[in-house]
Amino acid sequence: MGLTLGELADRIGGELQGDPGCVITGVATLQHAGPGSISFLANTSYRKYLPQTAASAVITRPEFAAECPTATIVSTNPYVAYARAAALIVPPAPLRQGRDPSASIGKDCSIDASAWIGPNCIIGDNVHIGAGTQLAGGCFIGHDSRVGNGGYLHANVVICDGVRIGERVIIHPGAVIGSDGFGLANENGQWLKVPQLGGVRIGNDVEIGANTSIDRGALDDTVLEDGVKLDNQIQVAHNVHIGAHTAIAGCVGISGSARIGRHCMIGGGAGIVGHLEIGDHVTVTGMTMVTKSITGPGVYSSGVPAQENSEWNRNYARFRKLDQLARRLQALERRLGAKD
Amino acid sequence: MGLTLGELADRIGGELQGDPGCVITGVATLQHAGPGSISFLANTSYRKYLPQTAASAVITRPEFAAECPTATIVSTNPYVAYARAAALIVPPAPLRQGRDPSASIGKDCSIDASAWIGPNCIIGDNVHIGAGTQLAGGCFIGHDSRVGNGGYLHANVVICDGVRIGERVIIHPGAVIGSDGFGLANENGQWLKVPQLGGVRIGNDVEIGANTSIDRGALDDTVLEDGVKLDNQIQVAHNVHIGAHTAIAGCVGISGSARIGRHCMIGGGAGIVGHLEIGDHVTVTGMTMVTKSITGPGVYSSGVPAQENSEWNRNYARFRKLDQLARRLQALERRLGAKD
Amino acid sequence: MGLTLGELADRIGGELQGDPGCVITGVATLQHAGPGSISFLANTSYRKYLPQTAASAVITRPEFAAECPTATIVSTNPYVAYARAAALIVPPAPLRQGRDPSASIGKDCSIDASAWIGPNCIIGDNVHIGAGTQLAGGCFIGHDSRVGNGGYLHANVVICDGVRIGERVIIHPGAVIGSDGFGLANENGQWLKVPQLGGVRIGNDVEIGANTSIDRGALDDTVLEDGVKLDNQIQVAHNVHIGAHTAIAGCVGISGSARIGRHCMIGGGAGIVGHLEIGDHVTVTGMTMVTKSITGPGVYSSGVPAQENSEWNRNYARFRKLDQLARRLQALERRLGAKD
Repeated sequence: MGLTLGELADRIGGELQGDPGCVITGVATLQHAGPGSISFLANTSYRKYLPQTAASAVITRPEFAAECPTATIVSTNPYVAYARAAALIVPPAPLRQGRDPSASIGKDCSIDASAWIGPNCIIGDNVHIGAGTQLAGGCFIGHDSRVGNGGYLHANVVICDGVRIGERVIIHPGAVIGSDGFGLANENGQWLKVPQLGGVRIGNDVEIGANTSIDRGALDDTVLEDGVKLDNQIQVAHNVHIGAHTAIAGCVGISGSARIGRHCMIGGGAGIVGHLEIGDHVTVTGMTMVTKSITGPGVYSSGVPAQENSEWNRNYARFRKLDQLARRLQALERRLGAKD
Repeated sequence: MGLTLGELADRIGGELQGDPGCVITGVATLQHAGPGSISFLANTSYRKYLPQTAASAVITRPEFAAECPTATIVSTNPYVAYARAAALIVPPAPLRQGRDPSASIGKDCSIDASAWIGPNCIIGDNVHIGAGTQLAGGCFIGHDSRVGNGGYLHANVVICDGVRIGERVIIHPGAVIGSDGFGLANENGQWLKVPQLGGVRIGNDVEIGANTSIDRGALDDTVLEDGVKLDNQIQVAHNVHIGAHTAIAGCVGISGSARIGRHCMIGGGAGIVGHLEIGDHVTVTGMTMVTKSITGPGVYSSGVPAQENSEWNRNYARFRKLDQLARRLQALERRLGAKD
Repeated sequence: MGLTLGELADRIGGELQGDPGCVITGVATLQHAGPGSISFLANTSYRKYLPQTAASAVITRPEFAAECPTATIVSTNPYVAYARAAALIVPPAPLRQGRDPSASIGKDCSIDASAWIGPNCIIGDNVHIGAGTQLAGGCFIGHDSRVGNGGYLHANVVICDGVRIGERVIIHPGAVIGSDGFGLANENGQWLKVPQLGGVRIGNDVEIGANTSIDRGALDDTVLEDGVKLDNQIQVAHNVHIGAHTAIAGCVGISGSARIGRHCMIGGGAGIVGHLEIGDHVTVTGMTMVTKSITGPGVYSSGVPAQENSEWNRNYARFRKLDQLARRLQALERRLGAKD
């Protein structure tokens, strides 16, 4: 039932300015916090709420501590410090063990006694479920798949056959892992299905968002390395390889055999063409269309932000003749003897 | 078994031109209607089908009534009048009551006797389900959630813990409400999960499309006000706030803490950056990228429509050097003494 | 337990160069194949792996046969030949028959004795399931729907009421077929639901990807003709009509009443506006925005590929004033007497 500010500062690794005996029982935003709550300031656009906050304490950077009307825990990375604090103050729901009688479990499975198999889960043959792993309900796990220790599969997650998932992996509702890739061979105008015989290999500490789809490989595996974080509504095609600690925001589509490096950040709605390579530490901003490999680190963008509709109409009409416009400019330059 | 045109005109509020005793038993498009059916003309691109329609009656605007070869119900808003007529002529399937024996129901729930809990539904503890609300089957409702009166949850909908849903809310199959937001703090290149402790609050008369995802808030709630309509495959991130009577078409992605006003229309595939504000009565056309706040009412757009591929190739190559092109133009203007 | 190269060449219709008695027991990529495996070279960007492959045989085009260090099956369409070979060498899992006791089945259904209704499936009244069709588990089939012979519905697929599906149709997990279209009539700023009374009609040999959504028609049906292939995370709105043998990649959104021809290819993330028509044999590249009808065959594109962020910033700023820039050029041209 709560921690003192002194304990909290110790455990999250920040410097306390204020009463170490003050008891914290909740977390809240600067705007909505009251006595007993701790808040944080990480994104400076919320700085305006700091002077009036009613929180008992605020986690923030050294430079904002002076503006804070209350106790502070000073940290050079206040968002990380806050994440730790929140996990301590609001502990997650207790884990369950065993299996609901409505679950259907195949042959030759090894399901750890400390795992929880919720109502209406369907588990195929030769499946391994690790210690403490929770299947909330309505989950389907295909034959020969394994989910490591400490995982959490939310409701209605589907894991197809032959998928290997590491430890502490969180999968949100409706996500599908290991569906067939979009492999089609064209014969005289009709499409022939190409058997999708690879699997999916997911490392440790991966998180996969709601209604996201990850296809199995055509022959080799689709791979998500350790610490990859995928948001909701993402499409990962067959044989994509995503490097460790890369984070991908919602609605991104990644085409087949694309290879994305480590520590990348891909913005929402971006699209990545197949059979290309993105190096480590690359940031792709939202709605960008990546059509060629990107080697170096850096930030890459495309797309055009919104304009008032009639302005946009005039501009895109010009865009459709941009090449002509450039040639007309060139012609003038030539006439005037300008350097091209 | 059918209504007369006279009754129908009365109940939908239009002016009848034709035989009030004519019995209508079905609804159909202008092209496919036959005797006994009523049709409508709202989108003028279908006007070409009006002269040949075999419908017994057509709901349309005053200016098209003269062209109609059959009885008409004249209305200034024929699409609304048609919607009412269709609901009267083709009544929805009867509601069910009670619970399928395969449903799994937690402790301390208050489920109205007139609600229907379909096969394989999984209901957590302390859940409230209102009068007449229908759960089709395979739905999951987490602990401490509530769904108001007159709702309809289609198959395999997932509602996570602590979600509050108003009255007459329709949720289509595969939608997920209340999954964790994409909250990650970066510590030395690795991502630390930020606990997602807020909820989702959904007003009355909201409709949510198939396979759409709505994340819970990080601390405060994600909010959909009354009358919000979401199409399929939409991503609503944590702490988004959508104002009353706003309609959002398929495949839209809305990033965290974006605030969208009332009576907005967001076209399909648009993307909205986080932490910005869109005012009331704003229309965003399809595939637009909104990167900054939009205050006033109006229509906003971006993106460039399709061109034949080789033209497009030439144009986008110029776009990539558009700044240089503008500077070259400026240089010519300076040489010629033109006003910039 | 394996086929000889001689048998394989006969059955897939290629010309064998090498030992016809060599036994093949697996398939693999050029890079990872070992003895006993057959590989293929179709996409020339993988040609670099050909000289070092350890495969026992490679399926490839005549022009690459000489470079191959091992036996070859020469084919003018090696990807089709490979697809056939893979299906012979790695046969699909055996079909199941009957029904799991946990399945819930409505009244007046006709379910072929050779079909399999997996655990926790929910089947409405008056449903037809054809010979050999497999429902993996957790599937929901609404009233009055039919699935033809030889189909495969993977886990947690939802088919709503009144959907007609042809033969040999594969539907991947989480897909939703027949949800209500986004039909809304605006009355004084509030949205009135327009009843969605049409169905969905799906031809033979169609494949539908994971978490894809296909809405029912408003009055007439939404139609997918024979041989249509849809990838994951696609949105097909009400009354869309997709012609035979058209393939659509992931994350595409198709608005209501759009009509797409036969033998089209639509790239990932493209968006197609409603009430337009795309002719036969049209290719739309990834992330293209189609806002007008496209009559002829050909390739159509839009969007601008990624650039380094600071370059992009300069260019899109100019795009926002592109009409002004064009007018300035025109003014210079007029001054100089250039032909426009």
